[in-house]
Amino acid sequence: MAIASKNQDSFQAEDVAGYCRRLGERAERASRLLRDMATANKNDWLLRSADGLLDRMGWILEANARDVAQASELGLTPAAIDRLTLNPDRVAAMAKGLRSIAALPDPVGEILGGGVQPSGLQIEKVRVPLGVLFFIYESRPNVTVDAAAIAIKSGNAIILRGGKESLQSSSALVAILAEAARSAGLPQDAMQFVETPDRNVVGELLQRSDWIDLVIPRGGESLIRRVVSEAKMPVLKHYAGNCHVYVDEYADLAKACEIVVNAKTQRMGVCNAAESLVVHGSVARQFLPMAAEALRSRGIELRGDARVLEVLTDAVPATPADWSTEYLGPILSICVVDSLEEAIEHIQRYGSHHTDAIVTQDITRARQFARQVDSAAVMINCSTRFHDGGELGLGAEIGISTDKLHARGPCGLKELTTYKYIVTGEGHIRG
Amino acid sequence: MAIASKNQDSFQAEDVAGYCRRLGERAERASRLLRDMATANKNDWLLRSADGLLDRMGWILEANARDVAQASELGLTPAAIDRLTLNPDRVAAMAKGLRSIAALPDPVGEILGGGVQPSGLQIEKVRVPLGVLFFIYESRPNVTVDAAAIAIKSGNAIILRGGKESLQSSSALVAILAEAARSAGLPQDAMQFVETPDRNVVGELLQRSDWIDLVIPRGGESLIRRVVSEAKMPVLKHYAGNCHVYVDEYADLAKACEIVVNAKTQRMGVCNAAESLVVHGSVARQFLPMAAEALRSRGIELRGDARVLEVLTDAVPATPADWSTEYLGPILSICVVDSLEEAIEHIQRYGSHHTDAIVTQDITRARQFARQVDSAAVMINCSTRFHDGGELGLGAEIGISTDKLHARGPCGLKELTTYKYIVTGEGHIRG
Repeated sequence: MAIASKNQDSFQAEDVAGYCRRLGERAERASRLLRDMATANKNDWLLRSADGLLDRMGWILEANARDVAQASELGLTPAAIDRLTLNPDRVAAMAKGLRSIAALPDPVGEILGGGVQPSGLQIEKVRVPLGVLFFIYESRPNVTVDAAAIAIKSGNAIILRGGKESLQSSSALVAILAEAARSAGLPQDAMQFVETPDRNVVGELLQRSDWIDLVIPRGGESLIRRVVSEAKMPVLKHYAGNCHVYVDEYADLAKACEIVVNAKTQRMGVCNAAESLVVHGSVARQFLPMAAEALRSRGIELRGDARVLEVLTDAVPATPADWSTEYLGPILSICVVDSLEEAIEHIQRYGSHHTDAIVTQDITRARQFARQVDSAAVMINCSTRFHDGGELGLGAEIGISTDKLHARGPCGLKELTTYKYIVTGEGHIRG
Repeated sequence: MAIASKNQDSFQAEDVAGYCRRLGERAERASRLLRDMATANKNDWLLRSADGLLDRMGWILEANARDVAQASELGLTPAAIDRLTLNPDRVAAMAKGLRSIAALPDPVGEILGGGVQPSGLQIEKVRVPLGVLFFIYESRPNVTVDAAAIAIKSGNAIILRGGKESLQSSSALVAILAEAARSAGLPQDAMQFVETPDRNVVGELLQRSDWIDLVIPRGGESLIRRVVSEAKMPVLKHYAGNCHVYVDEYADLAKACEIVVNAKTQRMGVCNAAESLVVHGSVARQFLPMAAEALRSRGIELRGDARVLEVLTDAVPATPADWSTEYLGPILSICVVDSLEEAIEHIQRYGSHHTDAIVTQDITRARQFARQVDSAAVMINCSTRFHDGGELGLGAEIGISTDKLHARGPCGLKELTTYKYIVTGEGHIRG
């Protein structure tokens, strides 16, 4: 593992190309070794890294304090400074995360299918690593550790490009992981950290599909859109989470109220929080006042269509833009529909195909909603907040995908792999 | 199903946008119905289509004859005219293909994983269709029928854009499939055929990731590169098949000779034909004369490196470009290496990660080759020509992918699907 360091703020064009070539070629070489690396070595690295984080806690917190001291100069919001700030609990949580990834089964080598064909050929469809990942992310230093762990456990080399604001923290974390790698027999360049803030490095690397198999951007929508428009390799991403809760004619309204409140308020700045409530007309007069009271007591502003305003006369009138908005804050849009089909139509039209929930006691309607709402996760009688790698049984995730190709929903170890066919004969030729 | 017809050779810009909007919106609506369509209806459509092709054989052959009559005007090569030409056997083969797709299991609704989580939530990971496919292909009219069948059986709507040269044939075939669709209760726009030769239609559709989930180009490398550079949605593709056969120190040389001859000569214009032979130095003096005799008797030109020329003194000297060339014709490049590792290195460097074979009796070396050669299919002691959906047990394929994301190798019904999570609780909220 290596920290690719270069202290100037900007490179000459030839420097950028040369720097990126070194990164790419090293990552590619490391990926060849990792593809074939024993599970024992990868787990040894994870456990040694966990120990290293705890042993060098003080050093990590000092490096983080330097980042935090610079944060207001860089114009970070208080919320961003909070995400950047480490403390002993947060470092311990990183170490715990590494141990839990060590405990997960190694996805590499799993036989996904196969058998003996009529020709007599033996077919194995085998899970193998993707190769080289390029991970671009913002502020939270723990992401450095999580991403490296998930990538390398699944047999991939990774190039990490974190935000300038967490440079000191990430460098310290990477140094500890690199030391563990040397002890565990992993290739030195399994993880490389881009230390230069030069944005041209990102632009150049996004061109190099010969070295990089997958890019994963994690951050605001503008970062992700830039990556998608420039990248010559596949991108694993989600843009937005405009998640809905639909309260059906046959809902248990007390459960519905708890689910809506949880989905909206349990954590508001995350992609699987609810942004919109859709209510069946036949229960609107009964349900909306219940929900409004519970939501308003938690400081949520309600924006409704004309039929909502008939019941909640003091709600804010919703504009068409509200239906498409991911607030990531204390606002909820609400509309009333006359049928399950109209609810599905609304969600298909305005949603972001991330997570959408139905609350109903009617099994036929629940299954129809689950089949016809084309989202990464459809929730029946539970909160949208459960759309998460841990809750769905993946163990660890590097992000959630709203794409349909390759991986949809939470992306854990298996989602960072591909497969190959191994076909064994005894001199077979095709007639 | 609809034939989108427009007889002018070129549209105004607003015509292109409007025409594409109609195509896209119809496909999107059809895909919603197909996502939830019963297997019985889809199979009924396939069987009625097969009957229709046989019943209207004469009409199909007349339409095809009009295409063939125009083919030399369009400057088609004799090989392309052969691919374009239908006869009763070829039409019967299409009908047989449809029946075999009807006999395959429906991939939609398969439970890929899940279970009950510690939270008590029930998780189902369910296979679902991708949505709308855009298929762009050249000359062979049977591809129209195959692609529509595979797309619709897997629950997707498809927009087909065939070559100008097969317009009459494809229109006749689509009309028959459309009639069967009406009888079988499939949505009218499940399959739409782009009849205009205006290339701007392709350009416009490639921008519309809001309607189209996946584009599949099948044809020459320049077509595929154009599609990749313009498309805003994922592309399922392979550029080239520069496939290798490596004859190891421990090979059974008689088997090796048969495999090389089969891989090179059984069908030369296809992506899984061998283009390059790599021979271990310790068997080169014995093996190369055997292989050369068998290959030359079938008209194959041999191009070798210096060590090959020591043995085959009359071989053509290979240039560096030969190592990267997919000849698709009667030429084979040959080099000699000193180790298994050197063979793997050569294949990784010059190959196209499509199909590469080892011939060896040593199981450890076979497994090392299989692990370390990063190709969609690795063949052990059998011909590269077996890398094919039918031979690998997929039943039918729409193409072979050399990408690593989503689908690698042959793409059949399952490879045209994605999955969603369905999460069922009993009022669960997250704590």
